[in-house]
Amino acid sequence: MAVSQSDIALASRLADAAGAAIRPYYRAPHGLETKADQSPVTLADRAAEQAMRRLLAAEAPRDGVAGEEFGVTDGTSGRQWVLDPIDGTRAFIAGRPIFGTLIALLEDGWPVLGVIDQPILKERWIGAAGRGTSFNGTPASTRACRSLGEALLATTSPALFADGELHAFEHLDAAVRSTVLGGDCYNYACVASGHLDIVVEAGLKLHDFAALVPVVEGAGGRMCDWQGDPLHGGSNGQVIAAGDPARIDDILEALACQGH
Amino acid sequence: MAVSQSDIALASRLADAAGAAIRPYYRAPHGLETKADQSPVTLADRAAEQAMRRLLAAEAPRDGVAGEEFGVTDGTSGRQWVLDPIDGTRAFIAGRPIFGTLIALLEDGWPVLGVIDQPILKERWIGAAGRGTSFNGTPASTRACRSLGEALLATTSPALFADGELHAFEHLDAAVRSTVLGGDCYNYACVASGHLDIVVEAGLKLHDFAALVPVVEGAGGRMCDWQGDPLHGGSNGQVIAAGDPARIDDILEALACQGH
Repeated sequence: MAVSQSDIALASRLADAAGAAIRPYYRAPHGLETKADQSPVTLADRAAEQAMRRLLAAEAPRDGVAGEEFGVTDGTSGRQWVLDPIDGTRAFIAGRPIFGTLIALLEDGWPVLGVIDQPILKERWIGAAGRGTSFNGTPASTRACRSLGEALLATTSPALFADGELHAFEHLDAAVRSTVLGGDCYNYACVASGHLDIVVEAGLKLHDFAALVPVVEGAGGRMCDWQGDPLHGGSNGQVIAAGDPARIDDILEALACQGH
Repeated sequence: MAVSQSDIALASRLADAAGAAIRPYYRAPHGLETKADQSPVTLADRAAEQAMRRLLAAEAPRDGVAGEEFGVTDGTSGRQWVLDPIDGTRAFIAGRPIFGTLIALLEDGWPVLGVIDQPILKERWIGAAGRGTSFNGTPASTRACRSLGEALLATTSPALFADGELHAFEHLDAAVRSTVLGGDCYNYACVASGHLDIVVEAGLKLHDFAALVPVVEGAGGRMCDWQGDPLHGGSNGQVIAAGDPARIDDILEALACQGH
């Protein structure tokens, strides 16, 4: 069933509110005397989540909310909004405008609507079940990739993998054309727009990946865990995004080869 | 001696010309049937360097030119323009607007003027001996950093280090507060604007680092090689940038500890 236009409009207003809360803190001077819990990124993170929670409390009071900063508020509708006000906090503090605000709507634990919003560049990807993915209002689509040897792969940092995961990743890394590091959620947006072919990560929490699934899949790609199973509220945080679904088996095979 | 305003104006026109040549290729669809040497990034790289060389031939015919794509053209003035039309080609092809055009003016082999230009975001850092560094026309300055434990470190990819270099880098990585990957020349611009504290890389060519030196040093930072010596045309490509010059010794010490 297609996500309603009113839910998409609400998700857009959430992203607008988060962006307005975040922008004043971007590239703000970081006074060294400031306590760690009052750093610009922490202040921006909290202000953005509070702005989104206020909007949800007013406009969707029966829906649950799970936010990175302020935890879970139960709902009664079977629907849950999952919020990550700043995905890519290191990029944010380093002054790189490729962090993002992530907003997902889950129905019975499954992500059906996702937003990746870059509030400095005013770039917004919205993916919604039954409606495809848009980039700033125009349709976005992934690109074909005929083999791993042709693929451009991205991951935020090899340091985020556990030991066995790192070996698996290195096997995939050796099979692709080229790998680019950094990027956080922006990598998945670039898969949805056909600039990147594959993203592989691990250790992601629900608020890190829930919004990515509708964006990538609505653009023609596929997301799954490292066993090939679809991602949902109970997934273990091992994430694959492929712009071309025909490459999923090759990726799973490369990741599974680490023991050989 | 301060760099002349007319050289700064010429460097800005070079960056304008490169940006105009690059923008049409950014996020352009990459036809898979296209030959490797006609990929959008290669076409953009060549078009941008040709545009800059045309301008230099017309306006500074006695100066030498060394470009990443088209090699060295000797001059008779003792001055050399060093051009890297697209630094961060992987970022460019991945659709990330944090690659850059690098333009340096060397006098007797020493970089005295540098430009880091991001043509999609229209962000331009200009550093000139005797005049300081500007970001889009306003003064830029690095920030203080009281210890390595407080520092935000960046490097494009650990895969770009040789084995011994990687061990040295890992020692530094363990001593800092946090490390962010990816970024290419944009990291040095973020040091100059006080968002990042340290960048450490190796394997850089003259066209990769020459423009960075005046930008970082004009903003109050320091650049040197891994032995602490200033960077010039004959440097071996091991590069350190520190926003706070007081941290250089700590960085050198951490990098030198890899054998212990």
